[in-house]
Amino acid sequence: MTPKSERKKYKVIGTRPIRHDGADKVTGRAVYGADLRLAGIVHGKILRSPHAHAKVKSIDTSAAEKHPGVLAVVTRADMPNLKNKIADLGEGSVNLAHLGANVLAHDKVLYKGHAVAALAAVNPHVAEEALKLIKVDYEVLPSVTWVMDAMQDDAPLLHNDVFTKSMGKRASKPSNVPTHIHFEKGNIEEGFQAADVIVEREFKTASVHQGYIEPHVSTALWNQDGHVTVWTSTQGAFTARAQTAELLQIPVSQVTVVPCEIGGGFGGKIAVYLEPVAALLSRKCGRPVKMVMTREDVFEGTGPTPGSFMRVKLGATKDGKLVAGEAWLAYDAGAFPGGVIGPGAMCVFSCYELPHAKVDGYDVLDNKPKTQAYRAPGATQAAFACETVIDELAEKLKIDPLEFRLKNAAKEGTRRVDGPVYPRVGLVETLEAAKNSPHWKSKLEGKHRGRGIASGYWFNIGLKSSVAANVNNDGTVSLIEGSTDIGGTRTSIAMQFAETLGITAEAVHPRVGDTDSVGYTDVTGGSRTTFATGLAAHEVALDIQRQMRERAAILWECEASQVQVEDGAYCHKDKKLTFAELAGQLGHTGGPVVGRATVSPEGASNGFGTHLVDVEVDPDTAKVTILRYTAIQDAGRAIHPSYVEGQMQGGAVQGIGWALNEEYVYSDQGRMENASYLDYRMPTALDVPAIETIIVEVPNPAHPYGVRGVGETPIVAPPAAIANAIYAATGVRMTELPMSPPRLWAAMSTGKKS
Amino acid sequence: MTPKSERKKYKVIGTRPIRHDGADKVTGRAVYGADLRLAGIVHGKILRSPHAHAKVKSIDTSAAEKHPGVLAVVTRADMPNLKNKIADLGEGSVNLAHLGANVLAHDKVLYKGHAVAALAAVNPHVAEEALKLIKVDYEVLPSVTWVMDAMQDDAPLLHNDVFTKSMGKRASKPSNVPTHIHFEKGNIEEGFQAADVIVEREFKTASVHQGYIEPHVSTALWNQDGHVTVWTSTQGAFTARAQTAELLQIPVSQVTVVPCEIGGGFGGKIAVYLEPVAALLSRKCGRPVKMVMTREDVFEGTGPTPGSFMRVKLGATKDGKLVAGEAWLAYDAGAFPGGVIGPGAMCVFSCYELPHAKVDGYDVLDNKPKTQAYRAPGATQAAFACETVIDELAEKLKIDPLEFRLKNAAKEGTRRVDGPVYPRVGLVETLEAAKNSPHWKSKLEGKHRGRGIASGYWFNIGLKSSVAANVNNDGTVSLIEGSTDIGGTRTSIAMQFAETLGITAEAVHPRVGDTDSVGYTDVTGGSRTTFATGLAAHEVALDIQRQMRERAAILWECEASQVQVEDGAYCHKDKKLTFAELAGQLGHTGGPVVGRATVSPEGASNGFGTHLVDVEVDPDTAKVTILRYTAIQDAGRAIHPSYVEGQMQGGAVQGIGWALNEEYVYSDQGRMENASYLDYRMPTALDVPAIETIIVEVPNPAHPYGVRGVGETPIVAPPAAIANAIYAATGVRMTELPMSPPRLWAAMSTGKKS
Repeated sequence: MTPKSERKKYKVIGTRPIRHDGADKVTGRAVYGADLRLAGIVHGKILRSPHAHAKVKSIDTSAAEKHPGVLAVVTRADMPNLKNKIADLGEGSVNLAHLGANVLAHDKVLYKGHAVAALAAVNPHVAEEALKLIKVDYEVLPSVTWVMDAMQDDAPLLHNDVFTKSMGKRASKPSNVPTHIHFEKGNIEEGFQAADVIVEREFKTASVHQGYIEPHVSTALWNQDGHVTVWTSTQGAFTARAQTAELLQIPVSQVTVVPCEIGGGFGGKIAVYLEPVAALLSRKCGRPVKMVMTREDVFEGTGPTPGSFMRVKLGATKDGKLVAGEAWLAYDAGAFPGGVIGPGAMCVFSCYELPHAKVDGYDVLDNKPKTQAYRAPGATQAAFACETVIDELAEKLKIDPLEFRLKNAAKEGTRRVDGPVYPRVGLVETLEAAKNSPHWKSKLEGKHRGRGIASGYWFNIGLKSSVAANVNNDGTVSLIEGSTDIGGTRTSIAMQFAETLGITAEAVHPRVGDTDSVGYTDVTGGSRTTFATGLAAHEVALDIQRQMRERAAILWECEASQVQVEDGAYCHKDKKLTFAELAGQLGHTGGPVVGRATVSPEGASNGFGTHLVDVEVDPDTAKVTILRYTAIQDAGRAIHPSYVEGQMQGGAVQGIGWALNEEYVYSDQGRMENASYLDYRMPTALDVPAIETIIVEVPNPAHPYGVRGVGETPIVAPPAAIANAIYAATGVRMTELPMSPPRLWAAMSTGKKS
Repeated sequence: MTPKSERKKYKVIGTRPIRHDGADKVTGRAVYGADLRLAGIVHGKILRSPHAHAKVKSIDTSAAEKHPGVLAVVTRADMPNLKNKIADLGEGSVNLAHLGANVLAHDKVLYKGHAVAALAAVNPHVAEEALKLIKVDYEVLPSVTWVMDAMQDDAPLLHNDVFTKSMGKRASKPSNVPTHIHFEKGNIEEGFQAADVIVEREFKTASVHQGYIEPHVSTALWNQDGHVTVWTSTQGAFTARAQTAELLQIPVSQVTVVPCEIGGGFGGKIAVYLEPVAALLSRKCGRPVKMVMTREDVFEGTGPTPGSFMRVKLGATKDGKLVAGEAWLAYDAGAFPGGVIGPGAMCVFSCYELPHAKVDGYDVLDNKPKTQAYRAPGATQAAFACETVIDELAEKLKIDPLEFRLKNAAKEGTRRVDGPVYPRVGLVETLEAAKNSPHWKSKLEGKHRGRGIASGYWFNIGLKSSVAANVNNDGTVSLIEGSTDIGGTRTSIAMQFAETLGITAEAVHPRVGDTDSVGYTDVTGGSRTTFATGLAAHEVALDIQRQMRERAAILWECEASQVQVEDGAYCHKDKKLTFAELAGQLGHTGGPVVGRATVSPEGASNGFGTHLVDVEVDPDTAKVTILRYTAIQDAGRAIHPSYVEGQMQGGAVQGIGWALNEEYVYSDQGRMENASYLDYRMPTALDVPAIETIIVEVPNPAHPYGVRGVGETPIVAPPAAIANAIYAATGVRMTELPMSPPRLWAAMSTGKKS
């Protein structure tokens, strides 16, 4: 928690202005993808595989094409040949053949719901009906949907062209394991030899979906001059542009992506699904083609977070010092390589000072939709494993679990198992804040009740951002950002700009540009936006300030270097002009002032959180009720505390969903059996208490205002914290997510105690 | 004409790429104001005065308000009090009370068609019907629509608060003459005493309309947070924003103007008409309100160019040197002060080296719609007068009219009567090009045929422009401009950017931004856009180039100053990267590159043209047929020759309309009797031959590529050239526009010869 004295130095940062897009959002005027209406628009639908694994022997679209209401039909045959094509789409190399085959299946379908063909028709109902006229001849193959099964030698093989890469070496035989990651630090054997107590447990987690309210929706127009415009719900317009262009094999500049308002993404709206298909349909029919997914499409056809199997072993000395940790993690990637095992392996031990550690991680193919990022991707699973083992170790050592964490908490200088050494970080401060919190100090009474604690970590990312700004003559500034605004970043970026320039947040008018209107900017994800795009906004403000000093110097016939900026006003000797006054003089001093900045920052530093939870477990039904929940997090600097709190609350609630209810339920044939919000149980407002929040501020030294990303960290701790609370309430150590009533009831019944 | 050697130094400038918005325009995909569709949109209509001059005693809107289909009604009572409010809206001070009263009449209506009230209804038809329910109690006043009548002491007085300003002094009695302009050079008496031949004639011209194909159309949404968004057909989004904000008395930053594609403006789409009214209606009903004018609304409610009365006297010595010129010009301003007498007075003698000159100009109020700019505003009338007197002088001196012009042509060092001294200009070159043209060298044979020549001038303006640019990793660049594109300026600006950067025109993707997306930019008008916004684009290209050199320096580990740019490629020692190759490396060298520039340039220099025309006059009907027409003009540098030619052709055809047919025909009650395209005769493709063009290039020394404005000059010469040709064909000197069959027939019948 920042001392008040330091707080006071800011006028805008730390306040809670009304968000700039508030009126549009609450009055329903914000334009989401589904609101888009264009002259001559037609409607596309996708035919999806009914099988989890099958060869596509042939597709007969002739009957659909003859339907009077159908304007175009596309299949894999309409896509360019992407074989052996690799592209860097902003965050490293991507196998385009795989990305393309996920958008429209090629020789095989790899999961139930896999897109096989698409058509455009005069309205969505005709489109849906006409799908039935497309005849696909499948040869059904055996399928696999559990990560450990998929790793077996005799498992159904998804791809002939995928070979395990392990420590730089490529295996000779195709496999369902594209990647084996290995991290090591110290000497693991020595480490465990030094331990007095060792706990080793195995864990399983289910696939869960990001559950954004707004389904995927895209409209594309392939114009007669070859230019493609895509209006879409995306976390990153430039990433969507790059993917669409590469899949269509046209230059990026031939694609304009207009990011509509977005009804949630959480990592799931980075990959393209509809965009290239709508474009192909538009090319065929010459009309704009709009495609909206149903909820079933979203569950079955877009990426959940991986199901996982994990083994975690930790050892500590009698005096409560951790000495060694070992983790073996297998995460499913779904139908194509490239899951989130990387960050899982990086994060599993990231909260602790561990002298000796070893992590093995496996990316595993199985017949599920291609895994996508979901808020701190991979970290939540790993924390569930690590943090319950920590809890058990503390118990065995008879040390308070909070004190045990404090004793071993990662801090400045701690080296993570995958290499990086932490700069100044705030885990200790979140633990201390937890210790001093009303929640921790309160007494939890009553039967079947228990309190849990867990910490969580996300490393945060930087990547690239661009911001431009135009000064209006009334002293306001229009800010054009490349970052799509999912969680209030128009405002958190505008506030940093305002702070630097010495104007109010309200005097800044932020606007999210399309890919032709603003410089390249990476996705809104990885908790990078307020950090990196905010940094760009700060730099634009400096650019503007420099120009404003030059203008004042013209007015006052002095050197720009003689113009001082004090509290946002421009001064020279006894002369003084506020920003707004000087803005009103631009017309007479050389014309408009515009600014721009691009950044590609290092140091998007390390977000830590600690969560406390009290639960009550119904002894008859095993239903878990969350009684009280407190999320504590180091935000570095909370630009707009309400939005930081909102992220903490949202992450906690999503984590509660992972912990207690959410899961993809698969049949033996690999079909998801609960692809609707009726059967896929997400927490509602009735299921959770008000989430209490405590923001800790340990400024990030790499950012002018000390910002750390805040979006992802809060989902990491909840499942472990709740598992630890359930243990406290019931004496049962749960090792599988979700800890839904049937699963918990079974564990309670067998009397499985630690 | 530029030598080929110099031409060759450019790769892009002077070529004719396909315009970037071509596909959208020819396929009907470009979004014009009328194409706008928003959720919940309602439709506004304006009630207009049936009287040319009347007191508005009361307005009863109660019946209209009760109509079930009506959502809002507004009158003068809904506008803020603008009394004594003056604002600078980008091009000097504007009396807001007058601007506001033109948008919605206050205590008086001042012309037939003057807006009195407006309403919004569920559809345009209901809106139109419901207008009849608004009861206005008028007290009809005497009216005046001819400029000379309006100047009389006993003329009906339009405003009690307008007093003549003349040479810095303000009269004490209200008057219909807001402004008297006086310019003097040398000693006019001495000048005429030195003359051997003097010609003095009086001229009249009718009001004519800009005649843009697209009527005015605006949609406004006054959002719940007080922010107003306006989608409109305008020549300048920022000017429309300033006017709208000032009329509504809200900060400019509370208004966003989105400029739609524009179906012609020619100066007539600078003033706001519908924008503030739609906003007021939207504030009342909480819905977006769309307003589209009918053609009758456009003729009766928006600004034509002034009707005028002019007296011009010129004297020359026997050897053909002009020695003195005197002009007395009265232009009507319509219902509110601020007509175009200023440029008329500046331009009347601007083609000639005149040692002694005097010009008096009068801005005159009468009961017509407020005069607006129309392509070289005020210059065409003045040239009609001056250039026919020149022709008559040449005849009396028995000197070829082209030679006479060459002898007296303004050139570098000539001082205009209002003060400025010309830098390098190209009038002589256009006359020489005319002399060498196939047209001038051809023989015109046949009865009732004649050839005419006239020169024309427009000074061109600079004002302010902003441009931003974002480099794509495929080597293309997105260019964001504040200038609305009326005549192909997306391309003419992109080409200058491409030339500077050494890339192709096609590699540039220009985009017109709204007022929140780009820096302040003045109107597309005054022939400034290719000059000033092009200059901004050039400067952005230099900004980008500088950054690209820094990036190459990072790659090659050298100083940026060591990186040479050769033919668009970046080089250091034996290393070389094309722009596109280097653009592909930005991700690894610090992230995106974006550029920006704003300019407020001097030296938007002086466009001259000379036109040749052959006519045949039907001796029975006095119908004039244009047999051949050649427009010659100094473009400084023709960036995209097709668009320069298009401007020359379009200007010539509009000038032909002024010359032969177009006029507002007024009844005694001051009603326009021909407010439709059926009765207001504009030239069609059937009325004119192909207009031949000769581009002369005398580079403007104040622009890196030598650009001069080209849009306005070509309308200036045609009426005079045609009058001179009619004289040659018939022996009748016409002194009144239009030289329509009835008027010419009357003149021919009375045998009025010079």
